[in-house]
Amino acid sequence: MRLLPQREAARAPAAEADELSAPFADRLAALTEERRSQVCLGLDPDPAGLPSDSVPDADGEAPAERAATAVVRRCRALIERAGPACVAVKPQLACFERLGAPGWRALEEVCAAAREAGLLVVADGKRGDVPVTARAYGQALVGETPTPWGPVSGLGADAFTANPLFGEDAVDALVEAARDAGAGVFLLVRTSNPGAAAIQDSALEGRPLHERLAELVAERASLLSGESGLSGMGAVVGATAPQHLGRLRELMPDSVFLVPGVGAQGGRPEDLGPALAPGRPASLLVAAARGIAGADDPGEAAERLRDTLWRLAA
Amino acid sequence: MRLLPQREAARAPAAEADELSAPFADRLAALTEERRSQVCLGLDPDPAGLPSDSVPDADGEAPAERAATAVVRRCRALIERAGPACVAVKPQLACFERLGAPGWRALEEVCAAAREAGLLVVADGKRGDVPVTARAYGQALVGETPTPWGPVSGLGADAFTANPLFGEDAVDALVEAARDAGAGVFLLVRTSNPGAAAIQDSALEGRPLHERLAELVAERASLLSGESGLSGMGAVVGATAPQHLGRLRELMPDSVFLVPGVGAQGGRPEDLGPALAPGRPASLLVAAARGIAGADDPGEAAERLRDTLWRLAA
Repeated sequence: MRLLPQREAARAPAAEADELSAPFADRLAALTEERRSQVCLGLDPDPAGLPSDSVPDADGEAPAERAATAVVRRCRALIERAGPACVAVKPQLACFERLGAPGWRALEEVCAAAREAGLLVVADGKRGDVPVTARAYGQALVGETPTPWGPVSGLGADAFTANPLFGEDAVDALVEAARDAGAGVFLLVRTSNPGAAAIQDSALEGRPLHERLAELVAERASLLSGESGLSGMGAVVGATAPQHLGRLRELMPDSVFLVPGVGAQGGRPEDLGPALAPGRPASLLVAAARGIAGADDPGEAAERLRDTLWRLAA
Repeated sequence: MRLLPQREAARAPAAEADELSAPFADRLAALTEERRSQVCLGLDPDPAGLPSDSVPDADGEAPAERAATAVVRRCRALIERAGPACVAVKPQLACFERLGAPGWRALEEVCAAAREAGLLVVADGKRGDVPVTARAYGQALVGETPTPWGPVSGLGADAFTANPLFGEDAVDALVEAARDAGAGVFLLVRTSNPGAAAIQDSALEGRPLHERLAELVAERASLLSGESGLSGMGAVVGATAPQHLGRLRELMPDSVFLVPGVGAQGGRPEDLGPALAPGRPASLLVAAARGIAGADDPGEAAERLRDTLWRLAA
């Protein structure tokens, strides 16, 4: 039984089907060329940092509801100011989940706002589980869930991040969900946190674990590749360990790299050249959250990052 | 700054504070002795399998709302029938998330129903991310989120599952959140799916990766240990590879093992003896979902599993 129908069948009128059914890699490549940008706006809203007068004092409204409203406004404002210099947004699911059901509704609204601004949505939840559960995550993020009362649409993300520790069968379940939806998957390969090295750089059967994870990505590249030759079977590769970028690009020649860790975490955009596939600027998608959201002028910060990156690609 | 106040301060009147502040391991040990059970009821509701007449035909109610209502009823019925033979429930977060905001509300209701039935709640989401994001997951699952409009309570789970691929700093952020809430953490060590072996049993620096992950658990056992000597710094260890159980118990002598994979996935409860810490039945918590929910008589299926396991512990 096929649980994950093509997204275009469920969501779009026939006239839009072609555009929506283009694989994520092709949609990203087209948008990257159009906007001359490889910037992904990270959305990690922290309600503790929002001004208390950012939502009106509605009688009896629960803190979660008010915080969710404030989070949507904050994200909308960021999208409005920084969005034109970006090609995608990356909402951090944890930051929304901590507000419960109102937080999940806020996440849906933020995704809709990003789409209206012409941006792709990368749902950042690092999900991973046994195959039957991985399929449920696929339904939640890029698919839909059949019910006796009609299908329930998931988040409608264009791509999502995933954790490969469960191994190939679990990864395959996620990739299949992505393929059916024309979506992309970014598998964790080498993360940006200081603690990553002790596990991910350790030798697994004689080579770094991150190279084994890169192999999982490369073996599946053809399943999510587009006409551009680029594959939406992507990898999360942190900017904080640039010494690995060249080797990882060698191992995953066609994959989009989603690169976190620039700015607050210490990674430098100038060091990301080796992450690029030659002649394909869309092979590099650089996520920046605090570096843009925390700037005095988020729009200008995003433009500066865009320009720095585009010079690498030129 | 302390972002995660003790749960009792935020949630409970003073009279209940002592009980709630007991570490997860002690609460589990007491309940295990009281019910003579080591069974954790897995809740993986699939709305596609629910009868369409299980919720009334309310005009204009969205499929997600109706499905969420049906899911709550289904889980409540399972808790009512199988709960008395169990000590905990393990809601599978993916199965709720796929219904969006109504699904998250359903999850909260199911957790409340489990607590009312005297059961502990293990939130099964296998979360893991860089430290700043791991803290947000901690807020979502066992803590609370400060906002200018007052704190927003998280799910209030007694424990949660987590993915250690990010390494020590990320794990520490989750463990700290758990400690502040008196909660437990089950770190993935050896999962139950067929694909697990190729990654988790491969040699990392000369020994299986799962042994390295077990070390991450053992090193933190004292942080979440209770008066019983048992530690809520636990491990997910699948029943489908029983050959590893003895060695893993040796490496993690005080940790609670959360064991999925019995029944539908092929693991046999009779094989789980080596997972037990001698004289401490609560060191083994066996999760069963389809094996109970799919039985003609879920109550009887749960009791049978309880009895089989208790004979191992005796």
